[in-house]
Amino acid sequence: MSPQQTIKELFRTADCVCFDVDSTVIQDEGIDELAKFCGKGDEVKKLTAEAMGGSMTFQEALKKRLDIIRPSVSQIRGFLESFPVHLTPGVSQLIKELHDRGVVVYLVSGGFRSLIEPVAAMLGIPPTNIFANRLKFYFNGEYAGFDENEPTSRSGGKGLVVRRLKEQHGYQRLVIIGDGATDAEASPPADGFIGFGGNVIREEVRKRASWYVTDFQELISTLTLQTK
Amino acid sequence: MSPQQTIKELFRTADCVCFDVDSTVIQDEGIDELAKFCGKGDEVKKLTAEAMGGSMTFQEALKKRLDIIRPSVSQIRGFLESFPVHLTPGVSQLIKELHDRGVVVYLVSGGFRSLIEPVAAMLGIPPTNIFANRLKFYFNGEYAGFDENEPTSRSGGKGLVVRRLKEQHGYQRLVIIGDGATDAEASPPADGFIGFGGNVIREEVRKRASWYVTDFQELISTLTLQTK
Repeated sequence: MSPQQTIKELFRTADCVCFDVDSTVIQDEGIDELAKFCGKGDEVKKLTAEAMGGSMTFQEALKKRLDIIRPSVSQIRGFLESFPVHLTPGVSQLIKELHDRGVVVYLVSGGFRSLIEPVAAMLGIPPTNIFANRLKFYFNGEYAGFDENEPTSRSGGKGLVVRRLKEQHGYQRLVIIGDGATDAEASPPADGFIGFGGNVIREEVRKRASWYVTDFQELISTLTLQTK
Repeated sequence: MSPQQTIKELFRTADCVCFDVDSTVIQDEGIDELAKFCGKGDEVKKLTAEAMGGSMTFQEALKKRLDIIRPSVSQIRGFLESFPVHLTPGVSQLIKELHDRGVVVYLVSGGFRSLIEPVAAMLGIPPTNIFANRLKFYFNGEYAGFDENEPTSRSGGKGLVVRRLKEQHGYQRLVIIGDGATDAEASPPADGFIGFGGNVIREEVRKRASWYVTDFQELISTLTLQTK
């Protein structure tokens, strides 16, 4: 079998699928949209570009961007109320197909749990199946940092989450799907990686992926083909 | 002049007075009452006794007690709503007399800012004049730790706060008033310490204090005598 046939076969028979969130399950990057909402869009964009140059660790980049935004509880609430969730076309159906087949679905994200919980709810994914960063606040609602012990706040964090999931639940055919380098890097320990370019195409991810799709319909077809 | 005359004279002419909060400005210990409210009163009491044996640092003891209580935002809110502030008799008048004389008053506490802000509001003390520990919470309101960089979370923290206040504002006659060893230890750098035993008498503090009062009326009389 070609590498693409192998990963397709793995996906068809997966017992666990982990989705990235920003630019994969949803069409936007949560942190950028939150930054814009808080009036810090340009500053954060500049820092993101700097971080992509490789001059800092994932956690440093996260910390610096949050230190610029410093989102309060009321800003997060305002953002959630005024910024609708933009699900990527096809993702609801794809996750429903997976759930119908008894496949366990997780969201594994370098973004923020508070922004991802509403997304999970729309997709029928329980909050316990979210791995993401947790913001902290003081009693008056001011920003107070983030949970630096959360694996997803660190470089290689998605791989660590995947490894733990396999250890704890004994998943044998775990597939991770995402648009970014941190998703590709999580395989292994993930048994396979599917690159997703439906919202943004990153050349280095496309090159690494033995299967790269730009439309979730392709994944749905692969799944449904199996049972017909 | 006797040591007591010296501290009385200092108090009469003070430009800054720092009050401890728990068992000084108010009649209770905030953390104990919060623990009771959260159903963890006995566990916390046991740990407090252990901590007093000197087996752990102030910050360790604070962390351990909070790890037992793990107060959520809604528990703090519930506590604030159902547990009225019990000001120590005379403290309102005393602080009013100090304010009338242009003396700057601070609350310096190893307790929690969220519990102290309502006390400060009752006494006309601005929130910026509170130095205390800050609890942290996740977006869903769960307990997420405390600000470990806050000086008041550490042994010697009140002394550090006093030193900084003197440096930043140039106070020349700063008096600290409290019932506990951490208050006594803050002098020096405080120019003087007044022991307060109106709610609880701690022998080791009474011994260390050149002036020890059990009723704020004594301090009010000392102040008002000056101007008559």
